[in-house]
Parts: sequence; structure tokens; C-alpha cells
Amino acid sequence: MNKITSTSPTDDPEKVYPRVPGIDYKYFKLSPEGVPEAWRKIALQQLHEYELAQKQHFLGYQTNQKLNFDEELHQYLNYHLNNVGDPFQSGNLTLNSKFIERAVLDYFASLWNAQWPHNNNKNTPYEERKDSYWGYVLTMGASEGNVYALWNARDYLSGKFLMTDAEVEHKAKEASKCGRKVSIEPRTMYYQAIAPECNPNKYTPVAFYSQDTHYSIIKFMRVLNIQTFYEIAVNNKLKCPLEKDDYPDDFSNEYIDEISGWPLEVPSDKDGNIHIPALVKLVDFFAEKGYPPLISFNYGTTFKGAYDRVKDAVEKLVPVFKNRNLYERKVHYDPNDKSKFDVRNGFWIHVDGALGAGYMPFIEMAIKQNKIKLPDGYTFPEFDFRIKELHSLVFSGHKWLGAPWPTGIFMSKVKYQLQPPDDPQYIGSPDTTFAGSRNGFSPIILWNSLSKNSYDSLIEMAVNMEGLAEYAFQEFKKLEQKLGIDLWVERSPLSLTIRFKKPDDHIVFKYSLSEEELYVDGKRRKYCHMYIMGHVTEKLIDEFILELSKPYVIPDQEEQVEQVVKCDIKPNATKLLHVPYIGRGFK
Amino acid sequence: MNKITSTSPTDDPEKVYPRVPGIDYKYFKLSPEGVPEAWRKIALQQLHEYELAQKQHFLGYQTNQKLNFDEELHQYLNYHLNNVGDPFQSGNLTLNSKFIERAVLDYFASLWNAQWPHNNNKNTPYEERKDSYWGYVLTMGASEGNVYALWNARDYLSGKFLMTDAEVEHKAKEASKCGRKVSIEPRTMYYQAIAPECNPNKYTPVAFYSQDTHYSIIKFMRVLNIQTFYEIAVNNKLKCPLEKDDYPDDFSNEYIDEISGWPLEVPSDKDGNIHIPALVKLVDFFAEKGYPPLISFNYGTTFKGAYDRVKDAVEKLVPVFKNRNLYERKVHYDPNDKSKFDVRNGFWIHVDGALGAGYMPFIEMAIKQNKIKLPDGYTFPEFDFRIKELHSLVFSGHKWLGAPWPTGIFMSKVKYQLQPPDDPQYIGSPDTTFAGSRNGFSPIILWNSLSKNSYDSLIEMAVNMEGLAEYAFQEFKKLEQKLGIDLWVERSPLSLTIRFKKPDDHIVFKYSLSEEELYVDGKRRKYCHMYIMGHVTEKLIDEFILELSKPYVIPDQEEQVEQVVKCDIKPNATKLLHVPYIGRGFK
Repeated sequence: MNKITSTSPTDDPEKVYPRVPGIDYKYFKLSPEGVPEAWRKIALQQLHEYELAQKQHFLGYQTNQKLNFDEELHQYLNYHLNNVGDPFQSGNLTLNSKFIERAVLDYFASLWNAQWPHNNNKNTPYEERKDSYWGYVLTMGASEGNVYALWNARDYLSGKFLMTDAEVEHKAKEASKCGRKVSIEPRTMYYQAIAPECNPNKYTPVAFYSQDTHYSIIKFMRVLNIQTFYEIAVNNKLKCPLEKDDYPDDFSNEYIDEISGWPLEVPSDKDGNIHIPALVKLVDFFAEKGYPPLISFNYGTTFKGAYDRVKDAVEKLVPVFKNRNLYERKVHYDPNDKSKFDVRNGFWIHVDGALGAGYMPFIEMAIKQNKIKLPDGYTFPEFDFRIKELHSLVFSGHKWLGAPWPTGIFMSKVKYQLQPPDDPQYIGSPDTTFAGSRNGFSPIILWNSLSKNSYDSLIEMAVNMEGLAEYAFQEFKKLEQKLGIDLWVERSPLSLTIRFKKPDDHIVFKYSLSEEELYVDGKRRKYCHMYIMGHVTEKLIDEFILELSKPYVIPDQEEQVEQVVKCDIKPNATKLLHVPYIGRGFK
Repeated sequence: MNKITSTSPTDDPEKVYPRVPGIDYKYFKLSPEGVPEAWRKIALQQLHEYELAQKQHFLGYQTNQKLNFDEELHQYLNYHLNNVGDPFQSGNLTLNSKFIERAVLDYFASLWNAQWPHNNNKNTPYEERKDSYWGYVLTMGASEGNVYALWNARDYLSGKFLMTDAEVEHKAKEASKCGRKVSIEPRTMYYQAIAPECNPNKYTPVAFYSQDTHYSIIKFMRVLNIQTFYEIAVNNKLKCPLEKDDYPDDFSNEYIDEISGWPLEVPSDKDGNIHIPALVKLVDFFAEKGYPPLISFNYGTTFKGAYDRVKDAVEKLVPVFKNRNLYERKVHYDPNDKSKFDVRNGFWIHVDGALGAGYMPFIEMAIKQNKIKLPDGYTFPEFDFRIKELHSLVFSGHKWLGAPWPTGIFMSKVKYQLQPPDDPQYIGSPDTTFAGSRNGFSPIILWNSLSKNSYDSLIEMAVNMEGLAEYAFQEFKKLEQKLGIDLWVERSPLSLTIRFKKPDDHIVFKYSLSEEELYVDGKRRKYCHMYIMGHVTEKLIDEFILELSKPYVIPDQEEQVEQVVKCDIKPNATKLLHVPYIGRGFK
């Protein structure tokens, strides 16, 4: 590629890049001459054969591969549809699909029991519209929704506000009285309220999330400079309030920092659910010191597919917030006038429902219709806007429902957007979304699926998948008996995933199995999991189990004894958060 | 939608949502019954007719609508391809297109004169691989690349590091000596270096960007809690070093905060280019106080399409960095051992090349081949990795090249990733990208275009577009003469956009014109612009000019005199940055 301005390579890419079975990189290499047409055809053929083979055995990740968008929507591959800006403002980029986006958002608002339609019309009294939902269809998938929710939470809790400069407003009004033509369009500034001396932590959010939380939540804590309870505790040498009884029975000590005595993240149980007694005690400890808590729940954890019991947790947390004067509190937005303030919650409840927020509402319906039986002693874990303290919810469109690329939904309420709308001092920025350019094809994809399916058919689909997950679990149990070895097979209640002892690498590759390491009884074990998504059939499960039953396919593991981690404070560095890379479903 | 658990609407969505011509919302509304098949067909038909009409007249935004991906790639609408994680690590989600992503990245690395292929193999000496590029194909478009670059910049400059806990490592080694089986896989923590007392600002990045910068850059400054020079200046009551001569001749005072005397952002000239003398003086002022500067350039500003002269600016800035001991500096990563440190730059140069980084390399080739003539006195503005101090570059794939949805490329170098690789104390996180799930279809889209086109054909395409832009500009000039009115027509050098007085709203809608307000000679004017992209033809331009020539199509404007803005410091709030919403091409 050494033509005109371009640089020559320092090495042959084929040598330094990973090899992919069936892919001959030379046909894919781009050059200043493009790719010769005959090679292009070969490349496209190899690409297709590779993807087809991998799709046919796909079992390891929570993405639905039963997709049929080519038939009705192929022509939009020749359009660039862009939903830039707020979905409820038309905007000038008219080659968009915002009218479909609004239909999709309304659907989910209704499904999740939020107030709909969205209404932020200044002609409607604020009291009538403040609880209506606001949201948008995501371009980067649930991770965009999570970073957006956490940003919103941080700014809401830390006393940030978008405000018009009062002087600009005032001057413009004065000038117009004198008959001078001046613009009265306000100038927006971003301000930070200052904590009073008597409550120095008032605007320092403290984050809580469980040890089963997706790695992207932790990444975004770093991006957003949000402090976790562990970080604040260790850097301020606080004493951990948790006692042995506050941890789950099956808790592994590996998740505790031995020196400080603090857990690195909020403990969860073996199934992957956040442990509510520990959460409540930790939150109260920091709330008592004035810190506003930011709590991020999982509704469908990545690796174990566990559903945090959000409603139960919030019921326990609300008395704590009230007791610590955090349920509602004043945030002064006009520092020159003490009578002007926002009333805001002093806490934020976020639910990462990337996986579960899609099908669990249909499982709940199925339960009411007696179409599914719950495991003994298990009740349905509520998570949606029926919980009136819920601030934000995120959902992935490409997981359960299925889409060719990442998509999803962010949903919150008008009153939590940083633009209190009944005060002319504030203005709303039209740039309300995280993304700039937004994928306009994605809402059409979601609409296509939802318009073709009734609740009844989605209930049936969800019930079938739960049935298949149980079937796979039972087949694994039979396999264990047949082989006479413990395959560490487990399935959390209502979960669509089954985890088991990691098989040989060729199986991991063939079935695209997600790999993970977990601590069990103080030992570190290598697991894989399979996910039951829309495309998975009994036949595929049977084929998979048959492969696993062959000799040497599931090798023995040296179960390593893990040292307890001591994380001492470094003298000249501030310890921020722990960045885990096991137990999060990354691989 | 009032079935089983879902809520009933509080109002009729059709009443509260914006109307869209040709779209009858009732066919699009989703319900628990889905949408009746006959209505679905009508909805799909209305959708297609609307998008087709808007596409045929599309002139106002920098997105190419000449796309032909349906033919060869339609089948991938039925696959979910996901490039989760680092593009150079295979990963277990094998239903991906990373091998194509790597080919696309190599192509751009070569085009932008970066060292390629990417190499971060621990078997290659660090010195040989540290300058090789690292990057990935973006899922959310250039805005993802910008937030990622700014995050990387912030952490690099503010003394953050990802580090293994040395004690864990040590304990593991000791234990294994005694024959005990323990894991030596390290535990990663995120640390923050502490500034020495003699240089308290050492780890406080200060941001500089021009007043023509895209709104997303400003949004991400808020997300990332990065302070701008204005914010630091005003909150610390510093005196502005700029004098009258340091501003561009045609500078409008509206961009200065009258009370403090500071410009709100770095001044740019009337064409939209950052004013280098002002930038250099501002950077030096803060560098002298120890702040590490983070400078974000535009290569193709959103509204005026101006190319900051990055190379010229960096040539002037390097002596400032050297003089202020910021060119290279020590960042201690092991606080227990003063002999251990990173050597890092004390500055970061980012280029938002969303638009220009795509075609300007081909314009440069065209200049060398005498295929295009530059405006008098104008030299080509270099922006790429030939500037050895460049840290990060972002490019949009859906603008010049064209794609059905937002995509793009982030590119940097191995040595700027937060994982100095020659020290076993560090480990690299496999989660190197901003997005979690990543669009695997996008690299195929980019590859499809690049494999079909040689440099020669891309040069021809770029030259044609410049020719068409000049043609449109001249047609506008003729229209001015014909109408006998000043249409405020302007085109910045080599820009693909022409700006002009805002026409009537029906024209704005029909041609999807981007709308903007700018200060000129102390007056605020409403402008629109048109963009010459691959799908724009002479015929479309002629048709557009003809429409504009009709009576009353370009209404008079009351040119409002803008009050000079006074932004006083509020006593109990910290002023953060200015959030502009005019002049940034948002509408």
C-alpha cells in the first residue's frame, strides 16, 4: 500500500494477526488498487461460509440469531437514516425514522408500566407531564444506555445543572423595554452546586453494584469518575459495617479485601443475585455520612442470567433514604436566591435490564395465565416502572428480540432529565441523547419484530425458551450421570443460561461458547455457559450434548487455590476502583 | 395497549407527537396484538415513500446517500455479527467480522501514515511496536470515537493507571516457591497519581477547542468532567493574556465574556479555522502553571466545513510544550519505588476528522497529481500521523464514504493505551473499546466500498465533489446577482459545504437543510448550508437553485443585535463550561 502518501507496512499483517479458520486473509487485504474483482468474490464467499457455519452452532452468547429482516427491509441498506437529536423533536435531518422510534418507545413504556405517551409540552402543566417517560433507541446497544444512565445519575446527584445565565436574560429584557432589538435567547451554562460545610458529602455520589455486574458498568464508573463505596471506604480508612451474617451463606472470601475488611463490590449469592441485606447495610453506612447513593441493579446478569430482586431491594432501601433525609432534598440552582431550588431525590436506582427487560414481562404474563410454573419458593422479581423510585432502565434489542447489530432502549422520566421545565430560567438542550448521529435503521428493525408479534406469541416464545433451558439443564444432568463426573452444571431460577465445566477449545470455538472463571469454595474454576435464545432448538442442544459426551471433550482442571487478596493503600497514589476481569462474561 | 400488565396511555400519542408528512401514525402504532397485516403493509409502504422522497432531495447534511449495499450484503440482515472486545484478539464470540475489521483498519492506518500493521505482541520488543497504530471500528459513529479519545486523553494526562497489585503478584510467587498451587494472574486496580506539592496542577488536564467545534465534544467534556481553560480561568479569577491583536481580524465580541475578559472557547476565524496565535498564547498561559493541555482540533467543522491547520498549530505548540517541561514528563506508577515511572507526554493532540479525514488524503494526492487547483495563497492543511505528536484521530464512515448507519474509526498508537506493555506489573484489559457489543456489519460495509474502489477512483470522486461545491457556490453567486440581494453566500477553502441565508421552512424541510445561527459583525443571522456528498448531482443543485430563485422563498431577516454576554461568577456555585447551542450545526 505504498502509493503516493501511504506508508509501507512494517510487517506482514497475515503473520501478526490471529488466524481464522476458513479465512484466507490475502483475499481481504485492501490496497490502493482496491481488491481484484475475482478476489472480492472469493472473499465474500469465504465470509459468508464462515459466518453461516458459526451461526449454525451458535450457543454461547445471549444474542438471537433467528432473524428475518432481509425479506422486508433490505432496501434500507441503501439509505442512511439518521435519528440525530431527541426522538420527540422532528429536527431538520428529515431522512429519519423518528416516527417509528416513538412507536417502539411507546410500546416498551407500556410494557414496563411507565406513563405514556411521552409529553414534555410546555402547554401541559408540569405536574401532569413530569412523570411521563422519556427515552430513546440506542445506537451502541445497552452499553450506551448504561453510560447515559450513569452520567444522568451522577449529574443529578452531584448537584449539576444546566442553567441560563440570569444576567443575559435580565439585560435582554431591559433592552427590549427601551425598544432595542436584542436576542433574548438564553445562554446555557453548566453549573456545579457547592456542598454546605455541614454536609460536605452532599454532592458526592457513591456507587453500589454487585460482583456479578457487567464489566461495562465498571468501565463507565471510570469514564464518569464516579466513586464506588469501596474506593471511598479505603481511601478514607473507614471500618466496614458488614459482619459475617450480612454475607450470603455461600459467599467466597476471595471477593473481600483482607486488609481493609471491605468487599470490593456488593456481595451476591451463588445464583448471581445481589445480596439485599449487605446492600442495605452498605447503603445506610454511606447515607448516614451524607453521600447520595447510586445503585445499579442487574436484571439478567451476563454470566449467570440472574435477576436482582429490584422491588424487594427498593422496599428495604426506601426507609433508609427517608431516615437519612435523602428521599427528597433541596438542590439550590440559583445561588443568589435561596428561595429557588430543585427538589431532587438523593438517590438513583438504575436497572441494567439488557437481557431480562425484554422477555421477563412476558414470563410474568405467562405466570398469571398459568402457562409456566415457578421453581419452588421463587416469586417473580419485579423490576419495572411500577417501582416508583426507579430512575432509569436499559434494555438490549439484539439479545432476546434479535437485531443484526447492537441496539436497545434507554428509558427514564421527564422529571429526571437535567432540564426542570417549569422554570423559564432553564432551557432544554435539544442534544438530549448520548450519541450524536443515531442509527435510524434500528427502530425499524425493532418495529418489524413487534408489529409481527402479539403479546400472546411473545409469551409463547418466552415460555418455550424457559422450557428449552430446563430441557438443556436436565440433559446436562443426564450427561453427568452417564459420564460419572461432576460437570458443575447450574442454572439460576428462570435463567436462560446453563453454566458448566469448560470443555475443550475446539468445542468452545465451534459453539462460540462464552468462557468465565468463578470462585467456588475458595477454588477458581473455568466455566462456560450456553444461552437459550430464539434460534436454539432441541436438535442443537442434543447435538451439543452428544459432542460433550465423547471422551476427553471435558478435560480435568487443576482447581487453583486462590490467595486472598490484600489491597493495601499506596502512599502516593489514590486508589480508585477495582477493575475485575473474571466473573463478568467478557471472554 | 391495556392488556395484562401494561398501562393505558394518558393521552393519544397522535395528538402529542410531531406530525410527519405522508405518515399516518395509526398504521405504525404497536399494540398487544401487534399490527394487523394489512396495516403493516401500509405502514411499510408509507415509510418507504417518505424515505425515498426525502432521499431524493437530500442536500443539507454531510451524509452520502449514494449507497449500494443491498446487492451484495443483504443476507447479513439475518445475522447478528458482534465484534465485542479488541479487534486484534479473536475472542470467543466467533460470529464476528474482526478479520475484515483489521483489513479496514490497516487501510486507514496506511492512508493516514500511521505505522502498520498493529502489533502489540509481547514477543516483539516494546520499542519496535510502541508506535504501531491501535484502533477500532466504531458502532456509534464519530461521537463514540471522540468520547473515547477524550477519555483516553484525560486518564493519560491526569496520571491514571491500570496496575496490578504488586502484593498479589509477590504473594503468588512466594507461594509457588513453596510448591503451593496458587493463581498468579494479577488483580487489576485503577489508580490515580497524586500531584507533587510544588506542581499542584500536574494532573489537571485543561481543554482547548475552538468555537466552531461540534457540540458532542462539549457534551463529552461534561461527561468526562474535563475542565476547559475558560472554566479554570473564571473560577480562579485569572487574567486573560489575550490582547486585541491575538484575535482574528473578523472576530465577533459576542464570543467573549465581558466581565472576565476571557473568550468562552478558542477563537476561530470567519472561515471556521482555529486561530493559531490565540491558541498558542492560551496554551502557554496554562502550561506555565503546570496544567497539561488537551487540544481538540476539527478537520472539517460541522457547519462551515473548515479544516484546522493541525500541522502548523502543532509546530507552534511543540516549543511551548518543551519550554514548559511538558513535552515529556515522568508519571510515577509505583509509588513505593521512585525509580519506576512512565514517561508520558504532558499534552494530548486530538483531531476530530469525522468529515475531512476521509477524502482530504485523496485531495492531497490530487494536488500532487495536478488534478485540482488550490485557492490562491492556500496550502494543504496536513492533519495525519505524519505529525508525530498526534495522539488520536477520529473519522466517520457514514459521511463521505457512506454507510446505512453511523460508523467510523478511532485511531491512536499502542504507546498511548493505558497499558504500558513492557512491564509485567501491568496487564492489558481485553475490554479496550468504548462500546461493549460492537456492530460487526459496519466493517463489512466499509470493506465493501474500499474493495471496489482504487485510490484513483476515490481521487476522482473527491475532485468531482470539490468541483461540484465550487459549481454550487458560483450558482449561488449568480442567483444573488439575479435577485439583487445579499444571500450571505460563503464557502471556506476546499470545503464541501456552502452556507447561505436561511430560506423558507418548506424548502428547509424538502431538502433537509441544516439550520444554524451565527454572529457576523455583531449581528445574529440565520443560515442554512448545503453539503456536496457522493449522491449530489449538478441536476439536484440546479433544481435547488431554481426553487430558491422564486419570489419570497428567501425571506428577510431582522438581524438582531446581540447583547454582549456577562457571565459573572455565582457565589455558591462553581461555573463549569459553556454549553453552546448555536453555531454548532445541531439543528
